[in-house]
Amino acid sequence: MRLARYTTAGSSTSSYGLVEGDGDDAVVVRLEGPPFDGVRRTEERTPLAEVTLLAPVEPSKVVALGRNYAEHAKELGNEVPEIPIVFLKPSTAVVGPDAEVPYPALTSDLHYEGELAVVIGRRCVAVAAEDVAGVVFGYTVANDLTMRDIQKSEGQWTRGKGFDGSCPLGPWVETEIDPSALSLRSTVNGELRQDGTTADMLRDVAACVSWVSQAMTLLPGDVVLTGTPAGVGSLQRRDEIAVTIEGIGTLSTRITG
Amino acid sequence: MRLARYTTAGSSTSSYGLVEGDGDDAVVVRLEGPPFDGVRRTEERTPLAEVTLLAPVEPSKVVALGRNYAEHAKELGNEVPEIPIVFLKPSTAVVGPDAEVPYPALTSDLHYEGELAVVIGRRCVAVAAEDVAGVVFGYTVANDLTMRDIQKSEGQWTRGKGFDGSCPLGPWVETEIDPSALSLRSTVNGELRQDGTTADMLRDVAACVSWVSQAMTLLPGDVVLTGTPAGVGSLQRRDEIAVTIEGIGTLSTRITG
Repeated sequence: MRLARYTTAGSSTSSYGLVEGDGDDAVVVRLEGPPFDGVRRTEERTPLAEVTLLAPVEPSKVVALGRNYAEHAKELGNEVPEIPIVFLKPSTAVVGPDAEVPYPALTSDLHYEGELAVVIGRRCVAVAAEDVAGVVFGYTVANDLTMRDIQKSEGQWTRGKGFDGSCPLGPWVETEIDPSALSLRSTVNGELRQDGTTADMLRDVAACVSWVSQAMTLLPGDVVLTGTPAGVGSLQRRDEIAVTIEGIGTLSTRITG
Repeated sequence: MRLARYTTAGSSTSSYGLVEGDGDDAVVVRLEGPPFDGVRRTEERTPLAEVTLLAPVEPSKVVALGRNYAEHAKELGNEVPEIPIVFLKPSTAVVGPDAEVPYPALTSDLHYEGELAVVIGRRCVAVAAEDVAGVVFGYTVANDLTMRDIQKSEGQWTRGKGFDGSCPLGPWVETEIDPSALSLRSTVNGELRQDGTTADMLRDVAACVSWVSQAMTLLPGDVVLTGTPAGVGSLQRRDEIAVTIEGIGTLSTRITG
């Protein structure tokens, strides 16, 4: 099942929907309300090409793991963390597929970081790793946009990774996928920059979600980001960054002036 | 104006209300909907003693400034930060007045930190310090509960300061007060522990809100915490911690087993 959130031309409201079919035949089947308490299909179908996709969920919080791939820790001159590094991106950071994100005035070194995003399906706290599968709704693609200079100078990563537009999510949530060894590729203007696999995570999805949930309750629609593989780098105004995860899809973002 | 949020016995919903009068005569006047687009009074009045106060707002995020009082930075062996330290507490951390907060299993060093909390009234971003007064709805009292050992060992303060129950807020939002020189006192089981004044903030309310808003949009009901004065310390199970700010009121929290 591919869960999306979308608007149609002339509509001021958003809906959840299921993306069904591929290519030119793909349609979105509108759902009645959010899907977390049960997926209720309606008869309303719209060609995918005619909708505007939004971030597929509206997380109350995005909780992220830092330096969760050894090669990425190394490329920025950091050690692999003995204790997981956890930070938050606020809901105001979230944008959808094909978003235009203005190059922030605060930085002169904006970086992309392609990541696998876990979408939580059930309210949960203190979940054991072996029980994580039962609280996960599915997986989507994220770009953990980072003002690298601000991140380095401020110690806490809140402003450097929490600015408006810093969390593109999408294009949809894939619910039937094994996240343990998916190819993850990022391109900038079509040029390959990240070519990793989720198999290289230092802590896997279950460990990440369990760790975060030891401290805080996760709510349906909340998102846990699982870190980025090697190959991060700077973005310029007008760059188009695309993150593709095998079996999920491609999340594109354009940096504007 | 004193804005509260509350429930009454037998009701499953919460309302915003105005607290009017003092002592035994105090009542809560129910409002129609949230107050941010205009305060709409109803005729419904309930004695304050008969309602259960909740956190006075439901913030999408709580953004907090660290080490914003020189004497507090010093007592923990830290330098005064050249660049403000900003961290987030998620909405799941927020609890109301007289909350019972379980001593978290993750820590063996739970600390209280009494703080002045700024409640945002208008959606805003990149606000100049001189314009901050125009986006502030009012002020309440916060306790920035902290797992000090986790905070120190994890680098990022997300788990150490973002756990469930780590952000008691209340008892209400006072809208007509000058925040620049208010006495702030914390007691544990009636014993005075913090005795400061907001006049000692390194960056004042306007500077704090402006700094945060340079990176991220603030929404109505969002909260900015302005740091704690000296005198923080450990809490034990069954401790009762009360933070009082002059002209606002007292926020009490009980640590349970």
